[in-house]
Amino acid sequence: MRPSGRAPDEMRALSFETNFTIHAEGSVLVSFGNTKVLVTASVEEKVPPFMRGKGEGWVTAEYSMLPRATHTRGSREAAKGKQSGRTQEIQRLIGRALRSVVDFKKLGERQIVLDCDVIQADGGTRTAAISGAWVALRLAVDGLLAKKLITEDPLPRKVAAVSCGIFEGTPVLDLDYPEDSAADADANFVLIEGGHIAEVQATAEGATYDEESLLRLLRLARIGCERIFAAQAEAVAK
Amino acid sequence: MRPSGRAPDEMRALSFETNFTIHAEGSVLVSFGNTKVLVTASVEEKVPPFMRGKGEGWVTAEYSMLPRATHTRGSREAAKGKQSGRTQEIQRLIGRALRSVVDFKKLGERQIVLDCDVIQADGGTRTAAISGAWVALRLAVDGLLAKKLITEDPLPRKVAAVSCGIFEGTPVLDLDYPEDSAADADANFVLIEGGHIAEVQATAEGATYDEESLLRLLRLARIGCERIFAAQAEAVAK
Amino acid sequence: MRPSGRAPDEMRALSFETNFTIHAEGSVLVSFGNTKVLVTASVEEKVPPFMRGKGEGWVTAEYSMLPRATHTRGSREAAKGKQSGRTQEIQRLIGRALRSVVDFKKLGERQIVLDCDVIQADGGTRTAAISGAWVALRLAVDGLLAKKLITEDPLPRKVAAVSCGIFEGTPVLDLDYPEDSAADADANFVLIEGGHIAEVQATAEGATYDEESLLRLLRLARIGCERIFAAQAEAVAK
Amino acid sequence: MRPSGRAPDEMRALSFETNFTIHAEGSVLVSFGNTKVLVTASVEEKVPPFMRGKGEGWVTAEYSMLPRATHTRGSREAAKGKQSGRTQEIQRLIGRALRSVVDFKKLGERQIVLDCDVIQADGGTRTAAISGAWVALRLAVDGLLAKKLITEDPLPRKVAAVSCGIFEGTPVLDLDYPEDSAADADANFVLIEGGHIAEVQATAEGATYDEESLLRLLRLARIGCERIFAAQAEAVAK
Amino acid sequence: MRPSGRAPDEMRALSFETNFTIHAEGSVLVSFGNTKVLVTASVEEKVPPFMRGKGEGWVTAEYSMLPRATHTRGSREAAKGKQSGRTQEIQRLIGRALRSVVDFKKLGERQIVLDCDVIQADGGTRTAAISGAWVALRLAVDGLLAKKLITEDPLPRKVAAVSCGIFEGTPVLDLDYPEDSAADADANFVLIEGGHIAEVQATAEGATYDEESLLRLLRLARIGCERIFAAQAEAVAK
Amino acid sequence: MRPSGRAPDEMRALSFETNFTIHAEGSVLVSFGNTKVLVTASVEEKVPPFMRGKGEGWVTAEYSMLPRATHTRGSREAAKGKQSGRTQEIQRLIGRALRSVVDFKKLGERQIVLDCDVIQADGGTRTAAISGAWVALRLAVDGLLAKKLITEDPLPRKVAAVSCGIFEGTPVLDLDYPEDSAADADANFVLIEGGHIAEVQATAEGATYDEESLLRLLRLARIGCERIFAAQAEAVAK
Repeated sequence: MRPSGRAPDEMRALSFETNFTIHAEGSVLVSFGNTKVLVTASVEEKVPPFMRGKGEGWVTAEYSMLPRATHTRGSREAAKGKQSGRTQEIQRLIGRALRSVVDFKKLGERQIVLDCDVIQADGGTRTAAISGAWVALRLAVDGLLAKKLITEDPLPRKVAAVSCGIFEGTPVLDLDYPEDSAADADANFVLIEGGHIAEVQATAEGATYDEESLLRLLRLARIGCERIFAAQAEAVAK
Repeated sequence: MRPSGRAPDEMRALSFETNFTIHAEGSVLVSFGNTKVLVTASVEEKVPPFMRGKGEGWVTAEYSMLPRATHTRGSREAAKGKQSGRTQEIQRLIGRALRSVVDFKKLGERQIVLDCDVIQADGGTRTAAISGAWVALRLAVDGLLAKKLITEDPLPRKVAAVSCGIFEGTPVLDLDYPEDSAADADANFVLIEGGHIAEVQATAEGATYDEESLLRLLRLARIGCERIFAAQAEAVAK
Repeated sequence: MRPSGRAPDEMRALSFETNFTIHAEGSVLVSFGNTKVLVTASVEEKVPPFMRGKGEGWVTAEYSMLPRATHTRGSREAAKGKQSGRTQEIQRLIGRALRSVVDFKKLGERQIVLDCDVIQADGGTRTAAISGAWVALRLAVDGLLAKKLITEDPLPRKVAAVSCGIFEGTPVLDLDYPEDSAADADANFVLIEGGHIAEVQATAEGATYDEESLLRLLRLARIGCERIFAAQAEAVAK
Repeated sequence: MRPSGRAPDEMRALSFETNFTIHAEGSVLVSFGNTKVLVTASVEEKVPPFMRGKGEGWVTAEYSMLPRATHTRGSREAAKGKQSGRTQEIQRLIGRALRSVVDFKKLGERQIVLDCDVIQADGGTRTAAISGAWVALRLAVDGLLAKKLITEDPLPRKVAAVSCGIFEGTPVLDLDYPEDSAADADANFVLIEGGHIAEVQATAEGATYDEESLLRLLRLARIGCERIFAAQAEAVAK
Repeated sequence: MRPSGRAPDEMRALSFETNFTIHAEGSVLVSFGNTKVLVTASVEEKVPPFMRGKGEGWVTAEYSMLPRATHTRGSREAAKGKQSGRTQEIQRLIGRALRSVVDFKKLGERQIVLDCDVIQADGGTRTAAISGAWVALRLAVDGLLAKKLITEDPLPRKVAAVSCGIFEGTPVLDLDYPEDSAADADANFVLIEGGHIAEVQATAEGATYDEESLLRLLRLARIGCERIFAAQAEAVAK
Repeated sequence: MRPSGRAPDEMRALSFETNFTIHAEGSVLVSFGNTKVLVTASVEEKVPPFMRGKGEGWVTAEYSMLPRATHTRGSREAAKGKQSGRTQEIQRLIGRALRSVVDFKKLGERQIVLDCDVIQADGGTRTAAISGAWVALRLAVDGLLAKKLITEDPLPRKVAAVSCGIFEGTPVLDLDYPEDSAADADANFVLIEGGHIAEVQATAEGATYDEESLLRLLRLARIGCERIFAAQAEAVAK
C-alpha cells in the first residue's frame, strides 16, 4: 500500500499551467501532485562559444530549488556561492534530455535556456522539470515559427520523464517524497514519444536490484510517460 | 499621463495570496500589478551566533530574482557564484524593515527567515517583498501562538513599503517598470502602521530633487501604505 | 549632551589633505574628526562595457576598511574572498552620489575610479568618503583640463554628504562612533551645492521616527554640508 | 570493426597495481588499457557531521583528472576555483557505487575516503575508478581487520563498473576514447558480484535507443564485470 | 649611476611614524623613500586552532596594496574575490620573519596579527613591511608588558629586511621601483640584530648570478639593516 | 646521524622515468627517494595576454599534491575552491626557475605549461618538481625541433634544484620528510649548469643561521645539482 493510497502504476494529478509568467518566450508551471516547478524558456540570439559559427542552435537548462520548497529550509545556493553537485547533476540531465529531441540545424544559430525553478517539492522535481521544459520549449519554438524566425519545426517529437522505484518491495510509478526517501531503488527514465529511450538512471538506494526489476520499472515509466505526453499535447494545444 | 493610465496617487492592483506553498510556516504570493513575489517565512529554533544566549529572537531576509522574472534573462546568481550588490542591498533593507516591528524578547530565542523570490518583475519588487514579508511573518507568528510556543504577540504593528518617484516632473505612487526606468528620482518608503517611518531611501536618478518633492513623495507613500495595510489585514484575517 | 561635548549642530574638525599620495590623478586624506579616509581618483582611458561607444564617460567607486581601522580587528575581505553586503551598499552609494554631479558627455569616453579606503573609523565613513571623493575627482578633472584632454568642465557643482541621527531624543549632526552605535535613527544625506538633494537614506535603528524628525535631520544636514562645501573649496583652491 | 580491433565483447587489458603509493591505507593503480587511475583509500577516525553518533561508518569518493591526462590540456580545477559539474557527478557516482557494498555498522564510526585521480585518460575513467576503488577499499579494510580495529568484514561483496555503448550500430564493451566520442549511446553499469545491479546510467548521445539495445548493453556489462571481479580477486590475493 | 643618484650602499630616507592610527595596540607608518606602508599590530586573546591549548602564542601577518598605491591602478583583491599568489607569498614571508624573533612561551596563549597595507609603492614594499612590523609588534608587546598581561619580554631582538639587487652590473642597496623593474637579480634579506639571518630570497630576473654576487648583496643588506635597526630603536624609544 | 643513515652530502636514489604518460609533449615521473612527482609539458600554440604579439614564447608551471600523497590526507584544493598560499608560492618558484634557462625568442610565440603533480611526498617536492620539469621541457622542445616548428634550441642549459638544511646542527643535502620537519634551517637552491645561481630561498625554521652555514648549504647544493644534471642528461639521452 502506497502512503498516498495510489495504485502502483498510478501517477499523481498532473497539470501544465502555460503562460504562468509574462516575460519569457515560453513559460509553464508544471505540477506532479504537490511538486511544482516553474519552467521558463528564454530565446537568446547567440550561442555558447563552442557552438559559434556552425549555423546551429543550442539548448541548455538551469535548475534550482527555492530555499523553502522543502519541509525544512535549505540554504540558498547564491548565498553559499556555489551550486551543489546535486543541482549540477540535475541541470545537466535536463539539458541532455531536451537536446535529444531538438534538431539544431533547424533551430538556427540561437540558444534556448530552460530555467527550472522548484517552487514546491514533493519528490520527482527533476522529472517534472524535464516534462515541463518540453512544454516551455514548444511554446518558445511556436513563437519563433509564428514570427517566421525559423521555417521548419526543430522539435518534431515530445520528451517526458518520470521517476519509478521499488517501495517496500513493489515497483511503483511517480514516487512522492515519502516513497522517494524510503525506496530501495530509485530510477529516472527520460522517454521519447514513440518508444525510444533518451536516458535511464537507475540507482540502488537501500538495496541493489535485479534485471527483472529494472524492466518492470521501465514498463511503469512507459505508462507514466504516455500520460505525460497526452497532458503535454493538451497543454500546448490551448 | 502615466504609461498605465493610473492617477498619480493610484496604486496598482494589489493582492496577497496566502498559503501559496505548503511547507513554510508562512507563505504568500504578493502581487503589485505584474510584480509578483513569493515570500515564505521559515521558523528555525536557533538564532545566529551573535544573538545566542540572550533569550531573544531574530528576523532576517533573503532576496532573489528568478532569471527570467524580467524582460531579458539575467544570469543566475547561484551559477555566477555570488550575489550582486543590488541583491544584498535589497535583502538587508527587507530584514531591517521587518525587524523594526518585531519584539525580539517576545519572539524567544528563535529565528524567522523571510525568503523573497521574485517570480515576475515590473518595478517595485523590494517594496512588494517587504509588504508581503509582513504577511508571511504574521502567519508564522500566528502559528507559534496557536501552538503556544510563544504566549505574547511579538508583532504588534504592521509594516509596509511602497516606491514613489518623480516621473516626467510629476510625483507618482507605486512605480511600474516603464516609470521606474525613466524616473528622475526614485524613493522607497518603509512605513509603520500609525504614521511612523522605518526607512526612507530617496535617490536622484536623472536629476536631483528638492525638499518639497521629498515631502510630496512621502505623502504619496502614506496613501499607498494605508491601502497596503488594509489589504494585509484582510489577507491575514482569512 | 553629546559624548564629545559638541553642540547638536556642530560638526567635528574637518580637513582635506590633498595630494596625500603621489601616483593617483587625484588624492586626498579626508578627516571628519577621527574618521580618516584616503580617496584616490584614477583616470582610465576606457569605460565599462555597458558604456562603450557612446562617447560618454563614467565614474565608479570602491570602498574598503583596513582591518584595524576599527576598535576590534575585522577580517580582511580579500582574505575572506568576498565583499560584505555593507561594503557593496556603501560603494554603490558613493558612486551614485558622485555621478549625480558629473556631466558624462563633457568627461568624454573615459572612466574615473574613486577608491575610498578607510584608514581609521569613528563613525560617518561613507559620508566622509563621498565628501573626499568630490575633492579627489575635482583634482583629477583639473588635471584633464590642464592637459587639455577635455575642454569643458564636467563637474560644475559640488556634492557633499553628512550623517545625522537622533541621539537620546535629540537630532544631532555628524555622528561619531559612540553616537552612531546608540542612535535611534541614523540618516545619511547627500546634498548638492545650491540646495538640491541627491540621496536620503534615513533608517530607524532603536525606534522608528516621524516626519518632523526627518525634516529636522535634513536641516542639520544642510548646515553640515555648507561647512563641507566651504572646506572642499578651500582644499582644491590650494 | 572497432578502432582498436577488439571483438564487441572484448575488454581492454586490465591491471590492478596494488600498493602503488606508500602512505595510504589502500592504494592501487588501475589500468583499463591506456586509462590509468590512481585510487587511494584513506581511513579517518571520524565521520561527517550527518553521521555522527550513530556508531556507523561512511565511505565517500573524490575524483579528479590531472590537467594533461587527456589529448589536450584541460585547466586545473583548483586554479579555476571550482569543480565542474562533470567532476561532481562522477565522484557522487563513485561514492554511491562503493557504499552499495559496505555494511556501515560493521565498519564502525570511521570514514574511508576514496581519492580517484586520473593519471591518463582513454575513455571509461569513472568505471575504472569504481573498479579500482573497490580494490583500495578492500586493502584498507583488510588493514583494519589485521589491526583488529574491526572484527567483522564490512565488505562482503565486490562491486565493479564498466562502460558499454552503441558504436556504429553495434553494442560494444569497454569503450575507449575514439569509440566514446563517436558512440550513439553511452552506458555505465555498476554491478555487484552475484548479479545484482547498483546503478545504470544509459544516455543517448547521437541517437536515442530502444529497450532491446539497453538489454544487450547490460549483457555486455555482465561479461565485462565478471572479468573485472576475477582481476580484483587476484589483485587483493597477492 | 643609480636613477636616484644614490651611492650603491645608500638607503633611501627612512622613517617610522609611530601611533599613526589610534585603535591598534601598535601602529606605524613606515617609509622607505616613497614606499609607505601602514602596519598595525592587533592583539587577540585567542590563538589559531593548531596552537590551542599549548600555552603558547602566535604571530601572523596579512599584506595588501591599496589599488592606487602604484603607477597604474591595480584591481582590488576583495573585489576579485581572491588574493594573488604574490600577496600570499609576501604575507607568508612577513609572518615567518617576525616569528623568528618571538618567544611564543613568553607571549602566552594570544595572537598578534600584523596588517601591512601599502599606501604608496616605490619598490621594496615587503621589506619595508617587515621592518615596520617589528616596530608595531614592539609597541603592542610594550603595551602587554605595561598592563602586566605578560611579565617577560617575548621580543628580545630586532628583525629588519631590505632588498638588494644587481642593477646595470652593480650590486646596490634598497632598490626603488625604477631599479627593481630593471634589475638582473633581486634579493630580499631578513636579518636579525646581531648578525644572524632569518631568510634569504635571491632571484635571478634578467640574468643568473654567481656566488660572489650573492655575498656582495648580503654585505649590502647588512649595511642597510644596521641603519634600519638604529631607526627602529629610535622610533620605539619615543 | 641522519634518520636514513645517509652521509651529509649524500642524495637519495634519483630517477627520471621519461614518457610516463602518453598524451603530453613531454612527460616524466621524477623520484628523489620516496618523493615522486609526475611532470608533464604541454605545448600550446598561444601565449598569455601580456606576451601577445611580441613573437616570443612563455613557460609557466602549476603544482599540486594529490590528497593522499602525504602521511595524512590533505583536503583537495579543487574541492576547497582555492589554491593555498604554499601551492601558489611553489608554482611561481618552478615557473621562474625554468624561465631562467629558456630563450623565449627562439621558442617562438607559444607557451609550454609544466604541470607538476606530486604522487607521493617525502620532502623536497618542489625541488624534485623543478628538476623533473627540466626533463619534461627538454622532451617537449626536442619534439618541436624534430617537427621543425623551431630551428634553434631555446634551452641551451640545464637547471636543477635541491633542498639542503641544518639538521641537528649539521648541514645536510636533500632533506627527506623526517629531516625537513625537524630542521633548524631549510634552503632550496635552484642552480644552473655551469655554476650560476637562479634562486636561493633559505629560511630559518627552528633557529636563525649565520653566513658560514649559508655557504656550506650552497656547497652541498652544488654537489647535489651536479648529480641531478648527470641524471637529467642520461634521462633525455634515452
